[in-house]
Amino acid sequence: MKRIFSLVTTLFLLGGAAQADQISSTGDLGLVVERAKGALLLVDQSEHAAVDRIEGLGDLSHASLVYSPDQRFAYVFGRDGGLSKVDIIERKVVKRVLQGGNSIGGAISDDGKLVAVSNYEPGGVRVFDADTLEMVADIPTASKTIGLVDAPGRKFVFSLWDDGETWIADFSSGKVDITKVKGMGENPYDALITEDGRTYITGLFGEDGLTALDLWAEKPEAIRVLPNYGRGLKDLPVYKMPHLEGWAKAGQEFVLPAVGHHQVLWIDSVTLKETGRTDTYGQPVFAMARPDGRYVWVNFAHPLNDTIQVIDTLTKQVVHEFKPGPAVLHMEFTPRGHEVWISVRDAGAVMIYDTRTFEKLGEIQADKPSGIFFTARAHKTGL
Amino acid sequence: MKRIFSLVTTLFLLGGAAQADQISSTGDLGLVVERAKGALLLVDQSEHAAVDRIEGLGDLSHASLVYSPDQRFAYVFGRDGGLSKVDIIERKVVKRVLQGGNSIGGAISDDGKLVAVSNYEPGGVRVFDADTLEMVADIPTASKTIGLVDAPGRKFVFSLWDDGETWIADFSSGKVDITKVKGMGENPYDALITEDGRTYITGLFGEDGLTALDLWAEKPEAIRVLPNYGRGLKDLPVYKMPHLEGWAKAGQEFVLPAVGHHQVLWIDSVTLKETGRTDTYGQPVFAMARPDGRYVWVNFAHPLNDTIQVIDTLTKQVVHEFKPGPAVLHMEFTPRGHEVWISVRDAGAVMIYDTRTFEKLGEIQADKPSGIFFTARAHKTGL
Repeated sequence: MKRIFSLVTTLFLLGGAAQADQISSTGDLGLVVERAKGALLLVDQSEHAAVDRIEGLGDLSHASLVYSPDQRFAYVFGRDGGLSKVDIIERKVVKRVLQGGNSIGGAISDDGKLVAVSNYEPGGVRVFDADTLEMVADIPTASKTIGLVDAPGRKFVFSLWDDGETWIADFSSGKVDITKVKGMGENPYDALITEDGRTYITGLFGEDGLTALDLWAEKPEAIRVLPNYGRGLKDLPVYKMPHLEGWAKAGQEFVLPAVGHHQVLWIDSVTLKETGRTDTYGQPVFAMARPDGRYVWVNFAHPLNDTIQVIDTLTKQVVHEFKPGPAVLHMEFTPRGHEVWISVRDAGAVMIYDTRTFEKLGEIQADKPSGIFFTARAHKTGL
Repeated sequence: MKRIFSLVTTLFLLGGAAQADQISSTGDLGLVVERAKGALLLVDQSEHAAVDRIEGLGDLSHASLVYSPDQRFAYVFGRDGGLSKVDIIERKVVKRVLQGGNSIGGAISDDGKLVAVSNYEPGGVRVFDADTLEMVADIPTASKTIGLVDAPGRKFVFSLWDDGETWIADFSSGKVDITKVKGMGENPYDALITEDGRTYITGLFGEDGLTALDLWAEKPEAIRVLPNYGRGLKDLPVYKMPHLEGWAKAGQEFVLPAVGHHQVLWIDSVTLKETGRTDTYGQPVFAMARPDGRYVWVNFAHPLNDTIQVIDTLTKQVVHEFKPGPAVLHMEFTPRGHEVWISVRDAGAVMIYDTRTFEKLGEIQADKPSGIFFTARAHKTGL
């Protein structure tokens, strides 16, 4: 995109329709959550610049979002239960519903027709028409619901904190068809789905270990893996349970943040057995592989959250360490991995680095930035 | 994208600028090569429709194309040596150079700044500024040049038919730095790079077997793999050497078309050793995994090119077979795999199928369609 508006003077064209002569393409755009302001900053990867700010999104602490297949619309899941549909071409909120009391994330079906939201209060999952935001299914669970992801074949998968169950909601027939898997473990607190959509893995708050489901199985069953994953000897306080979405595939291994310990773990992607550990600067929050899997970038929990370490996946050694600034909350790689964009909340900026030279390429002012979401996510499963 | 133009009466708005009130997003668009006409048909995935036709592209037999990171521009590599830059928002050719006498493919660097083209006549690779199409590097090879791909870190990799060498051209420093790897084998005819950009594999016309390079190695060396891959006993004529770009990753295995035989081969993705074979209807041309890796779709060489078979990657058995029509040339999956679009040249149509029910969802008239390229390719390595 060429026609952008400079952020040099923090001047924004707030909301409003696109200019008549404006020509847009959406492949290199992204949205940055400005959590305190309840706003989204629209950014342009190629220009290293902010394009516009979209406001009026409610409580965006811990907010996340997904994109429509055409990359025109973002569906934003606010902590306050708000589900907002944002048009990034016209740069405004086009629909907004308060669908629950305490929402913690959402997903979009592989065909882009359905948007699902999971809720703490009331528990359960609600599914909406992506076009109109009218509710098409209400799936009460009588439990806090966590770890909601989309899976291939118009499915959503999520877990029940109170009951230790995972439910697979299949919308391929038009109506919802639910499969319930029991015995997932005590208090699942988060989950991920592998990039191919085959394996769903839940983290447990109430016990050590993780539980996997093979979604290709005729009848998926709970498979306990990594029995030592967790707080273990409890010799360190846990400042923040790591995000499981941060699991990275690096070559033939997954890399994941340890719980409580200053380590990342390496896991064989086929057997799901541990293959090694790397000591890190602090308690890792996100361990994210560069898209080619050659390096893993790690950020850390408070109070060590000013630092990033970069680990070589061949040697499993830390090869670079630097301090972008206070409160590094999130990282997003450009789709082919030549740059990484980093939210540094208390510096009020998103910082852009070359992933090979580590040179700083740019900085974009943002109001307490947290999650960064590039539009390339539209074409990925489970993001 | 909502504002589309119907193809019902084969009425096209030919070329010309976009309408002033038009609002575009580019995530769900694609281009279909109309080989006889020298045109590109712009299609919209979500609408199952053609949007426009872009003409004036020269000889498009065996044409391919790549996209800019913002998905606005396509770089089209014509057989006649033409390199054309097409604006899919304004729907016209914006620049065109005749850069060689007989071009056979191209690639775009991971940062989107450089476009490379490989040539039979004269041999070698030429690299162009993606913005202006001015030549920034000319790499003569004194050989037909094949198997050109982009690799992470602003690199291009290609092979020399006459000399059995692979060259790695690294543009990360600004100027070009070339590493030559000898001993790749007799007459490499095509190559692929794995999705993570780590492994480059060439097929050999002059002998059986394949040759791999580990691009993560300090000093990449030729690694001979699959010694029995090739025509072997020569008990079948080879109607068409299979496209190596068709190698598919399905779970932990690669699937690839056998040469000459009515089979696809299964290869362990780590050891690159053969793990099985599946008998097929004809000589496979493309064996393409649905993006989740659960099924592989296969089309066949003349005279059996009216048929598609679908193979289950768990059982390695053919589970579905159907005849879309005469001369099935190419298949492209939607990025998350819910649909597949198929070029049926002699039916004059692109046909759209649900990948789970196999139901036909739509059909778009096209003039002798061949390659289908969705804009999601902008964010992938080696496509």
